[in-house]
Parts: sequence; C-alpha cells; structure tokens
Amino acid sequence: MDSKIKIGIVGYGNLGKGVESAISQNDDMELLGVFTRRTPSELSVKSGVPVLSLNDIHSYENDIDVLILCGGSKNDLPEQGPELSKSFNTVDSFDTHAKIPEYFDAVDASAKPNGKTAIISVGWDPGLFSINRLYGESILPNGATYTFWGKGLSQGHSDAVRRINGVKGAVQYTIPVEAAVDKVRNGSLPQLTTREKHTRECFVVLEEGADATTVEQAIVTMPDYFSDYDTTVHFISEAQLKEEHSAMPHGGFVIRSGKSGEDSNQVMEFALKLESNPEFTSSVLVAYARAAYKMNKNGEVGAKTVFDVAPGLLSPKSSQQLRKEIL
Amino acid sequence: MDSKIKIGIVGYGNLGKGVESAISQNDDMELLGVFTRRTPSELSVKSGVPVLSLNDIHSYENDIDVLILCGGSKNDLPEQGPELSKSFNTVDSFDTHAKIPEYFDAVDASAKPNGKTAIISVGWDPGLFSINRLYGESILPNGATYTFWGKGLSQGHSDAVRRINGVKGAVQYTIPVEAAVDKVRNGSLPQLTTREKHTRECFVVLEEGADATTVEQAIVTMPDYFSDYDTTVHFISEAQLKEEHSAMPHGGFVIRSGKSGEDSNQVMEFALKLESNPEFTSSVLVAYARAAYKMNKNGEVGAKTVFDVAPGLLSPKSSQQLRKEIL
Repeated sequence: MDSKIKIGIVGYGNLGKGVESAISQNDDMELLGVFTRRTPSELSVKSGVPVLSLNDIHSYENDIDVLILCGGSKNDLPEQGPELSKSFNTVDSFDTHAKIPEYFDAVDASAKPNGKTAIISVGWDPGLFSINRLYGESILPNGATYTFWGKGLSQGHSDAVRRINGVKGAVQYTIPVEAAVDKVRNGSLPQLTTREKHTRECFVVLEEGADATTVEQAIVTMPDYFSDYDTTVHFISEAQLKEEHSAMPHGGFVIRSGKSGEDSNQVMEFALKLESNPEFTSSVLVAYARAAYKMNKNGEVGAKTVFDVAPGLLSPKSSQQLRKEIL
Repeated sequence: MDSKIKIGIVGYGNLGKGVESAISQNDDMELLGVFTRRTPSELSVKSGVPVLSLNDIHSYENDIDVLILCGGSKNDLPEQGPELSKSFNTVDSFDTHAKIPEYFDAVDASAKPNGKTAIISVGWDPGLFSINRLYGESILPNGATYTFWGKGLSQGHSDAVRRINGVKGAVQYTIPVEAAVDKVRNGSLPQLTTREKHTRECFVVLEEGADATTVEQAIVTMPDYFSDYDTTVHFISEAQLKEEHSAMPHGGFVIRSGKSGEDSNQVMEFALKLESNPEFTSSVLVAYARAAYKMNKNGEVGAKTVFDVAPGLLSPKSSQQLRKEIL
C-alpha cells in the first residue's frame, strides 16, 4: 500500500461517530476531517481531527479520496448525494427503498461526467441483506426469500409513537415471530402475513395528565405503522426509558428456501445480531469506501450499489493474499 | 435478453447431474450437451441433450458460451481447467484449498491470452463461505471468524474409513458442536480447539469375519482424519447403509464476531442447510456460469474467483430491475 486512503466525513450524528470509530480500526485509512453544517468551533470530535465547515468542502477536493455521507435519507442525502458526487468519490446509506431508482439516477448524472465513483444505499438493509436476497434468488431460482428484522429498535416507528399527543418519549422494538422463522428455516415455504412475521413492542413515557388508554389505542390502530401488527404497549418512567432503552440494538435474517433436483430442500440464511445498529452500518460504509477508492482508480465511475461491487474490493488484502488465505 | 446462454457440461457424476437439473430452472440458459470421457452411446442423460465425446469438444467452440467443469479436484480439474480454458469460458469447483494459488495461475495463463474468462473454485466452500469470511473480516476488522461444517456427509472422511482393512462400506458425518456454535453466536470470541468445534460419526459395514474392535481402533486413532476429534463408530448392515445413508446432506456456518465503537458486539452469520450437497454446489456453479458469460462480454478475461465477481452478475435481472426490486 503506497499511502493511506484519505476519508472525509459529512455529518456527525450516530453514523458519523461510528464511521470515525471504524476508520481507526482500518490501518489503510486515515480520517482527514469532519464536515458539518453547524459552527465548526462548537463541535468537538472524539478523534481530534479537524472539524470543518461544509461550506468550505470544495477547498479539500484534492485532499480527500472518499467522502462518507452520514446524513439522513429524508432531508440530507437527496441534496448532498448529487451535489457532492460532482467533486468527490462518495459512499452513503440512502435507505428509502422506494426512492432508490430516482436517487441512483440523480447521483449517476453528477458522478459519471465528472469521473467520480459514488456507491449509494450501503449498510445492512439496503446493503448486506440485499446482497443475500440476490445470492438467494440467483442460486435457488425455484424458491422464496424471507426477510425478518429484529429484535431491534426501529427509528421510524419510535418517531411515529413520539408524534402522538400525550407521549413524552418512546421507543419501539420490532420482533420477528420465532414460530414463523422456524417454519421458514425448515424449508416448508410458508405463506406469511405481515402479522405472522413480526410483532411490535412499545415503551412509552406519558406527558403529565395524558390518558394511557387513549395513547395505547392511538398506537395500536395507527395505519401503516401498527394496525397490521400485534402490538404491545408498556408505560414506563422517563428514568427507565433512559436507563433501559438507550442502546440501539438491531439485526435480522434473510432466508432463501428453495428446491433443487427432484425435491431437495436447500436453505441459505444470513443473520445479523447487532448491539449497535448505527456502528455496524458505519463499519459497512467504511469497507465500501475502500471499494469506492479502488473502483475509481480502475476507472469504474458513476453511481454504483452493493450489487456492482465485487467482494474482494472491500478488503485491504491483495487478490493473491485473499485466494491463499480465505478462499 | 437476446438469446439464451449456451452451456456445456464436462463430466456426468453427481455434480454434472445437478448442473443439468439447475439449468432447467434458469430460463435464460440452455444446455447444449454433456461431454464425457466414456463412450457417449453408453451414457444416457436425464434431459435428453446430446452426449458427446470429450475428444470432440473443440468442434463446439463456437456453439458454447460457458463450459461447466464437473470433474474432481484431484485428477480431473488440474488437467481440464488449464486445457479447456484456452478455448472456452469455464466455471469449476476446484476445492483443494492449499493448491488454489497454483491452480489459479495455471488457468490464468491459459485463459487470459486467449480472451477467455474462467471462474475457479466456485461452490459453497470454497465459494459462498469464502465470500462471507471476506465480508466478515472486511466489515469487522476487530474480531474473529469461525467456520463450522455440518451436519453433513464428508466424502473425504468416508473414503478414508472405506480404505481400512475389514471395512466393506462406510459413511462419515461431520457434526458441529452446538455448545461451541452457541458461544460464538453470543459474541464471546472463544478460542476453540479442533476437538471442541466438531465431532465425527461413522456408520460402518464390516467385511465378513472382520473384527469390530480392531476396525474401530483403526478409525478413531487415524491421524489427520480422526485422532484430533471425538469420533463415534456405529456398525450397521449393508441394507441399512443403503437405506438410511444414501442422501448427501451438508451445510454449516460462517460466523464473524467483532467489536465496534467502544465495546459493541456485532455478529454476522451465514448458514447453509442442504439436503443435497452436490445439487447445491451445482446451483452455485450455474449462477456463476451466467457471471462468466457477462464478464467475458465486458472484456474481463483470465482466471477469476468468487471474490472478483460482483453480486449483480449472478442474476438474470438487469441492474435497474435489481435496484428497484431487491435492493
């Protein structure tokens, strides 16, 4: 390795902090700085690298090999992805599944004519789970794919509960139904309804004077978010919420069950058990930053997804070393 | 899709039969014929495609897009791989781990100057398990990787038992030790000896007059194969062997356990549960034949391994469709 891959982080929330920490585990990488929309002097970062204003980012075009975009999919990335991939190789975790095609096209239109490589929608879902759905259906075309999430904290569902009148704080856990997972694992190819696959569990802190029954009804009947699920609501104190529900565990399973030959059941499963969801997503982003760097060197420019990235590009090891050591 | 990908099979053992069957599950592929070293007229194949002599294979250079080499790693592939990849795109399941670098170089020297693409060592180990070892160590560099095999029939160990004097027939199952798997899954990063990871179970039919105790001792003390394991030996009748032990189940787990951030445990697991080991390997070979075809069209020639193949190349779907449907 001639010199280290120079990384810039855009955004310093949970994901940005996780990326900072993951870079320190990778000897072939170096964190150049954290870019923020806040006043840089008001932000201090753990590694002590420079905190820089996002407004000045274009002065660093020659110093950064890959920018890791750590903003949110709703407001930050739709703007930052297409804008920054004009001048930088980028990696992001855009995760609004329905809008991926449109986002891909916007980033591709920026990156490609400027000779930049931009890997979008990196993480575990979209990301590693998507890859496993793809391996599954490509290898066992005669079968079915099942994705289960959890047990884990869902940010979107927690937010939905928090928006209800009378709710002061809340977290929501998504829990896969074990009986359903077992059926799938046994290769029985069950048809499963939404309700049969996952349950939802909420821990809620009420505002003073709020009525528990009213809040509970508002939760369990909420369309899209809860009405199709069996949902349990627990009311707890603010202290309990902070103490027992501050971690962000998550995980899940992608299971492909299919038949080959006469009638042989074949089951492939990929599973994650994560104590920290954002830190794991960050770790995936950092590995794909390495791939973005290598692909750009190889002239593979434009928008890419995890489907376009050969596994070997994620590793700091040479192809020769990989064949010898872990093939 | 303009026209179907035309496949030739070399060798018609369990793997060749599995490939024949897998091709029939993939609408974008067509089996052109089975090549054999036997007398073609003496071999009949299930799909009814032409059976052709391996001696005549070069007359089919313009008719075949990808050859799937279904011979063994010991005697067939070391010769066939370098020879056939001079004139054909090939996929094979070369699985002698220690000789992969040497085999790769030999195939590369044939394929590259002739503009052919040859993907070697495809299957599940080497193959999908290798990919998961790579994803694991690249994403969680601070951790350890564990590979467990089974419960499954091991061909090599079954053969070793059959070579013992007094043994008429035998099968050997490799069984992962559940307690060890559980420790790994829980993220405790245990140090495990060979004996702690797997047990071995043999079902043996004795020759008439052979002494059970002598045979059992010869098995359990056999160096490399059994002496480092807790091995159980069962003596059964020839009829039982045929009835209860003719299937070829296998599977296993690749688990990467690592730490991110301050001290978060993160566990990634890939698991296979296969009713037919050769049929599954065949299904993987067929998906990679599609990739070999696409890579050759893109000018990516020479020897390749699963590490060099972007996941999207395995699918009959377009990149656009994949992003929309399963990312």
